Amino acid sequence: MSADASRNTIGGPRPVHLVGAGPGDPDLLTVRGARLVQGADAVYFDELVDTRVLNLATGAQTVPVGRRAGQGGRDPGQTALEMAAMARSGMRVVRLKGGDPYLFGRGAEEASALLQLGVPFEVVPGVSSAFAAPAAAGIPLTHRALASSVTILTGHRGADFDPRRWRALATGADTLVVLMGGTRLAEITLALVAAGRPAGTPAAVVVAATMADQRHVVSTLDGVAAEARRQSLGTPAVLVVGEFVSLAATLLGPAMPALVAAAG
Amino acid sequence: MSADASRNTIGGPRPVHLVGAGPGDPDLLTVRGARLVQGADAVYFDELVDTRVLNLATGAQTVPVGRRAGQGGRDPGQTALEMAAMARSGMRVVRLKGGDPYLFGRGAEEASALLQLGVPFEVVPGVSSAFAAPAAAGIPLTHRALASSVTILTGHRGADFDPRRWRALATGADTLVVLMGGTRLAEITLALVAAGRPAGTPAAVVVAATMADQRHVVSTLDGVAAEARRQSLGTPAVLVVGEFVSLAATLLGPAMPALVAAAG
Repeated sequence: MSADASRNTIGGPRPVHLVGAGPGDPDLLTVRGARLVQGADAVYFDELVDTRVLNLATGAQTVPVGRRAGQGGRDPGQTALEMAAMARSGMRVVRLKGGDPYLFGRGAEEASALLQLGVPFEVVPGVSSAFAAPAAAGIPLTHRALASSVTILTGHRGADFDPRRWRALATGADTLVVLMGGTRLAEITLALVAAGRPAGTPAAVVVAATMADQRHVVSTLDGVAAEARRQSLGTPAVLVVGEFVSLAATLLGPAMPALVAAAG
Repeated sequence: MSADASRNTIGGPRPVHLVGAGPGDPDLLTVRGARLVQGADAVYFDELVDTRVLNLATGAQTVPVGRRAGQGGRDPGQTALEMAAMARSGMRVVRLKGGDPYLFGRGAEEASALLQLGVPFEVVPGVSSAFAAPAAAGIPLTHRALASSVTILTGHRGADFDPRRWRALATGADTLVVLMGGTRLAEITLALVAAGRPAGTPAAVVVAATMADQRHVVSTLDGVAAEARRQSLGTPAVLVVGEFVSLAATLLGPAMPALVAAAG
């Protein structure tokens, strides 16, 4: 923690660290993230952060911030206010956000709130489940010949976009990844088809990626929501859509998903 | 390495690990990735992988695979063939890819080639510079109220897409991130404007993100390529386009980029 101490100007608050907790498995935390969590005095965490990551914070008080898809949770300003007070008292504060802090999850709002309170912060990026979940199910996001663009969306508002924008989002990139859409899979997949993505496009849903209870289904865009429901796949779910989703299964063989899952 | 040994079936080859090396700083490698590199007998690496990451492989022979944007490099099949031979001889082989193995970088092709050779593999996801570079320059990719979709493209082919698809890519997502477009910034930004993205959209170029020599410029979509050239920004460059790029500078204040850069 010497690097952090060196940045703690005399009398000023310590920087709060906004750390990406990765997709779940504590081994998928960054080296820097793990070190910061291990040395923290206080860890504020979202509900989606895995218990095994929190267990690294042996010397810290852990404070749930209580956000889950669709629930709203605490006001980022209130969380920032508490963290700022702790940082001013000399505590090493870590704000653990599932995946990457700046891809969804209101990291930008908490960062702004901290700066307005005069408390410095650092962002430590993390592995997003937008990448880890497809990989854990044996699905590459790009392929030199087959897929050279990826769009990542949040599904927590469903398909609540301007129609023209939505059409471009649905049909533009080779691969679509929808995070936090678990409870609205039917609505989102229907909207993607209505917006012009062919109904037969291969699609997969991956749940609890990199966790012991990881599971996934592969189907088509118009079938995957029903299949996920039939298999009671649950949340947190990542939807992956693109021609390459099925080609991966062919190309990479049945052995791969298990092997990749074991990497988590 | 006990977990790896346990998966090494008697007489069969060891799994090859396709590891995301992250954006540069070795502290942004995942815990699992760092452990695998440290315990490797052979590390095959792309040119973009930082020397400090390779320095972790103290007991390994390191083999450059020599891919850089626009250069093509070695055939993934040839690399897979060599790695397969080593894995069959009982060596612990790590294939280090800049960023995330399955987002560009031909990870899918090497994985397929390994499986066709009968060699198992595991994918260890990594922090992509698609996330780390904007964060290191103080630019969140999403904001609850302002940006809820991100498209990531490879720029190494320039704007060489089907025009209708290109238009959707250019205008669909709130935030665009173009990787590996450093040598073609002018061409790509011009094409984005021609495809309908307003010329005045805020845009940034971040070079050598998370490295000691990290630098970036913030401008507009039609001005950022010239500004990057004027400042001799060089490569590897990440282009970020979106209304939020400038708003971030306003919202988050001038103190942030330096603080965030210090996190690297």
